[in-house]
Amino acid sequence: MTEDEINARHAEKMAKKKAVRDRMLAGKTIEKGLLIVHTGKGKGKSTAAFGMVLRSIGHGFRTGVVQFVKGSWDTGERHVLERFPELVTIAAMGEGFTWETQDRERDIAAARAAWDAAKAMIRDPSYRLVLLDELNIVLRYDYLPIEEVVAFLRDEKPADTHVIVTGRNAKDELIEIADLVTEMTLIKHPFRDGVKAQAGIEF
Amino acid sequence: MTEDEINARHAEKMAKKKAVRDRMLAGKTIEKGLLIVHTGKGKGKSTAAFGMVLRSIGHGFRTGVVQFVKGSWDTGERHVLERFPELVTIAAMGEGFTWETQDRERDIAAARAAWDAAKAMIRDPSYRLVLLDELNIVLRYDYLPIEEVVAFLRDEKPADTHVIVTGRNAKDELIEIADLVTEMTLIKHPFRDGVKAQAGIEF
Repeated sequence: MTEDEINARHAEKMAKKKAVRDRMLAGKTIEKGLLIVHTGKGKGKSTAAFGMVLRSIGHGFRTGVVQFVKGSWDTGERHVLERFPELVTIAAMGEGFTWETQDRERDIAAARAAWDAAKAMIRDPSYRLVLLDELNIVLRYDYLPIEEVVAFLRDEKPADTHVIVTGRNAKDELIEIADLVTEMTLIKHPFRDGVKAQAGIEF
Repeated sequence: MTEDEINARHAEKMAKKKAVRDRMLAGKTIEKGLLIVHTGKGKGKSTAAFGMVLRSIGHGFRTGVVQFVKGSWDTGERHVLERFPELVTIAAMGEGFTWETQDRERDIAAARAAWDAAKAMIRDPSYRLVLLDELNIVLRYDYLPIEEVVAFLRDEKPADTHVIVTGRNAKDELIEIADLVTEMTLIKHPFRDGVKAQAGIEF
């Protein structure tokens, strides 16, 4: 085939692809607040959620963040969010990771306080997006009853509000009621080769 | 078991977990610029990269973005990045998606121009992080020779510079030389139920 033939065939193929896409998109007409879950052992769960928070802010939407585990976000993120005080509310409610606190009762009390803050934000329809960062960790340890969380998100989330839940080991009950679930899978990680956590990458 | 026993057992288990983690982290002492790849059919590839760009900016690092496909980012992201003009450079070089342009020659010329911009940023050691957004798409269509891209990233990237490459269908040659590879896997997507793309979520 000559270059011209390759180019002509490409144009034809892409025109067909566009027609298929346009037909598909024309059938998508529903707008609604989504329940989104980022899970899996790979990286990017909280980072992608952070990206969505900033995108939401960029659109001028009021946005809430509840951190169920302290230390999962860092100064880099905070500095950026602090530039948008009129749009973003952060509730850093959690204690450190479970292996840092080593105190189950304190972890449970912190989880309950964070969940109360989360419910208040989600019930407030002025929030368009609420991120429940690392909620999956808390659910995994049964620090909050999954039935209570699922019932609230299913029955009390306003129709237009997007909620993002992050953390590995998402419970099946949560995945069941979610609209969009992405699993981040680790394929290759530099920790294995002795590389340490670095500013801008890990935190 | 009583609550007290459960709590005591938990504390013991977490203390052990912390000791294991501390030992592991103590062995991680290397700092180096990473080549990071976000691939897979799921969502969050560009969004997690966008989150890392903002985290990098939050640390005060000079950061570059090259968009190999126009339209993969949107106004939400742009509005946020525009608040940090002293730290971030964006080169939106690509044409639209291949099925929008339907013009292979124009796509190839755009890919080459974007790659030239990318090389200039990566060679400049004042950049700590450079995002090559949707480069995988361009490589998949062979608009740039994979050998050339791999040789450059392997041999010419400064040791301290982090480079992130996004896009589905990452080539094996790229994964081979990458330090950190995450695959975003789609588990559940609302498009299937007729929900349309929405501001703050899809763009």
